[in-house]
Amino acid sequence: MSDQPSDPSERTRRRRVRPQWVFPIVLGLVGALVGIAGYVWVADPNDSGSQATTTATSQPTPTTRADAVSVAVYKKIQPSLVFIETRTTGDDGALGSGVVINEQGQILTAMHVVRNATAIKVTFADGTESAAQVVSADPEHDIAVLQTETGPQVIVPAVLGGGVRIGDEAFPVGSPFGFVNSITAGVVSGLNRSIGRQDGSGELDGLIQFDAAVNPGSSGGPLVDRNGQVVGIVTALANPTDRNVFIGIGFAVPIATASGAAGGPER
Amino acid sequence: MSDQPSDPSERTRRRRVRPQWVFPIVLGLVGALVGIAGYVWVADPNDSGSQATTTATSQPTPTTRADAVSVAVYKKIQPSLVFIETRTTGDDGALGSGVVINEQGQILTAMHVVRNATAIKVTFADGTESAAQVVSADPEHDIAVLQTETGPQVIVPAVLGGGVRIGDEAFPVGSPFGFVNSITAGVVSGLNRSIGRQDGSGELDGLIQFDAAVNPGSSGGPLVDRNGQVVGIVTALANPTDRNVFIGIGFAVPIATASGAAGGPER
Amino acid sequence: MSDQPSDPSERTRRRRVRPQWVFPIVLGLVGALVGIAGYVWVADPNDSGSQATTTATSQPTPTTRADAVSVAVYKKIQPSLVFIETRTTGDDGALGSGVVINEQGQILTAMHVVRNATAIKVTFADGTESAAQVVSADPEHDIAVLQTETGPQVIVPAVLGGGVRIGDEAFPVGSPFGFVNSITAGVVSGLNRSIGRQDGSGELDGLIQFDAAVNPGSSGGPLVDRNGQVVGIVTALANPTDRNVFIGIGFAVPIATASGAAGGPER
Repeated sequence: MSDQPSDPSERTRRRRVRPQWVFPIVLGLVGALVGIAGYVWVADPNDSGSQATTTATSQPTPTTRADAVSVAVYKKIQPSLVFIETRTTGDDGALGSGVVINEQGQILTAMHVVRNATAIKVTFADGTESAAQVVSADPEHDIAVLQTETGPQVIVPAVLGGGVRIGDEAFPVGSPFGFVNSITAGVVSGLNRSIGRQDGSGELDGLIQFDAAVNPGSSGGPLVDRNGQVVGIVTALANPTDRNVFIGIGFAVPIATASGAAGGPER
Repeated sequence: MSDQPSDPSERTRRRRVRPQWVFPIVLGLVGALVGIAGYVWVADPNDSGSQATTTATSQPTPTTRADAVSVAVYKKIQPSLVFIETRTTGDDGALGSGVVINEQGQILTAMHVVRNATAIKVTFADGTESAAQVVSADPEHDIAVLQTETGPQVIVPAVLGGGVRIGDEAFPVGSPFGFVNSITAGVVSGLNRSIGRQDGSGELDGLIQFDAAVNPGSSGGPLVDRNGQVVGIVTALANPTDRNVFIGIGFAVPIATASGAAGGPER
Repeated sequence: MSDQPSDPSERTRRRRVRPQWVFPIVLGLVGALVGIAGYVWVADPNDSGSQATTTATSQPTPTTRADAVSVAVYKKIQPSLVFIETRTTGDDGALGSGVVINEQGQILTAMHVVRNATAIKVTFADGTESAAQVVSADPEHDIAVLQTETGPQVIVPAVLGGGVRIGDEAFPVGSPFGFVNSITAGVVSGLNRSIGRQDGSGELDGLIQFDAAVNPGSSGGPLVDRNGQVVGIVTALANPTDRNVFIGIGFAVPIATASGAAGGPER
């Protein structure tokens, strides 16, 4: 075995440099990206209905196939989605996502979405807007819980799911680049993944790796399973270039970890 | 609410800068990309059959699972696909995609594929090639209709579908980078999206957002639903970097809008 | 037809420049990427089990929907997966993937994963590590066969499948950026594709094009169909920028071609 590439432990040590290429996926509103946020304010967060122009049909079109799972998934999670905007000192703030998790209207999101925020604004799926405060935080797992001043007309907490298996369908829902409440589809690529933190302070461990598209602004949104239950909170993407965009590898904090961070047995 | 990040209307105004990062996805044949088009001419547009080397099997392999929806989707749309090449003054032209929409063999595509074209060449799915002219255009919605001089041996118009819902399966079919008649699979991520036009002249509105891969050369191709019906015409992708490649966010003009642009009740 | 963009044969000749943008997807361990490999050694290659934290459920959650195909696909292929690390003269070596194909424990991988390797280390799915040698190579098709000194406790050869059709589901499994044994999901986008070789020596022909995410480190891994059978060996991705990351277009050598390269009727 002396011709092995090297001694593992040695290589491990040598290689445990902080990976520069794993990004938290909050969308910062500075510099060249300012233009992007224009969509945020013009888009209707409650656009889950069918579009206006739906009747063009050139001939009878019996729908013979069952709906995609993702239609039901979106319908189930949609009322619980929130879009988050923050203001921070010294720049324009950030955009992220979140999900309502209890009858008090508390919102689970990623800690890095609200880090250093001097003001947090939440838009519920029904269009209701409210200021919000961080009531609980678990920086170790990049999780925060928000409480809003005003709730939506009807609070619809998401159903929290259990664990996932490799290969399970996975649907992140959030607001990449301010395209509010976007759903994407993929599968769980791996479990128990570790990635370095952006700030260099150690690692995020125990993550779900998935291949559904997430991008800046997706952070904090729910990762939903095929039953419409929240199995994780979206936290990061991997990209070895200096560009913080999706290339097929996203990460979420498992819901058990995230909801534990939220504290309290009632969850 | 004075601690809200800002007054929405003000921020809206401030942020409504034209997003530089939404690209029409025609493939321009200039500069470093010239080499790419080599594939265009060597690839067989009629390659929908099974490959030559299909019999390697190490043991009996009963196919116990039903086919993927996308197999039937591709079979249904394939005869209606067209590959578009243009020549323009001053550069090498462009590559794009399109779909046959009526018995006259007229082709629906994206306006920006044929913009400034001095000559348009269409290759039908059966390999038939023909010159084509723009007979109708709706620049407002980035839609054009082409008429060819020669049709394919058998004209097979695509079936135009109705509206889509968020979460519906979505299959764009086109020729990214000249990989002729490629199908990719994803879901509808959002509806009624607005993006800035590349030329700065306002916005494209009412778009379907999807997460199936599209790239330069995909423009003008059909977005197909799980029943094999055309529900949109592919028009753009979002990428905040200066690179015009897919990162998980594509856009299509809804078919009702596109076919309205084609004009005429007969469609 | 004199107004056609050009004479095809002439354009073909002119355009058949080597595309710089198709990358073999081995992960080289040099320069800025050194840090990435840290994951390799800390991740448990045998992490296919459920994660530790799987019981958080806020209410009864009957699973009413059938499992995703990809769960069964992963379970079936997982015991046959291998993770490959090499050492080469003058740099830190490379990372790739492979799959066990017979009772002798021989491993099918991409030739470019082991090119110029002075030492090859293989980690089986059960965690067993062994040195390996190249026993057969087909550079023409970018295929190599490895024999290890030590096998896993139980050798589980993958079942090799037959051909694929456009639209068929396709699941590449490998170790992108050292995220060991990741599965991603997509469909076959096209068949019989040709791409230029990185070293300029002609083309790779007859390839399967797919839209499931692959990245550096995925090379040599199996492309698996919905029955869990190996239908190809992952070899490259297309990206017109100078960044070797996934944008929606991956390529695999069909298994018939690859297993022919492995030699021997017994396969």
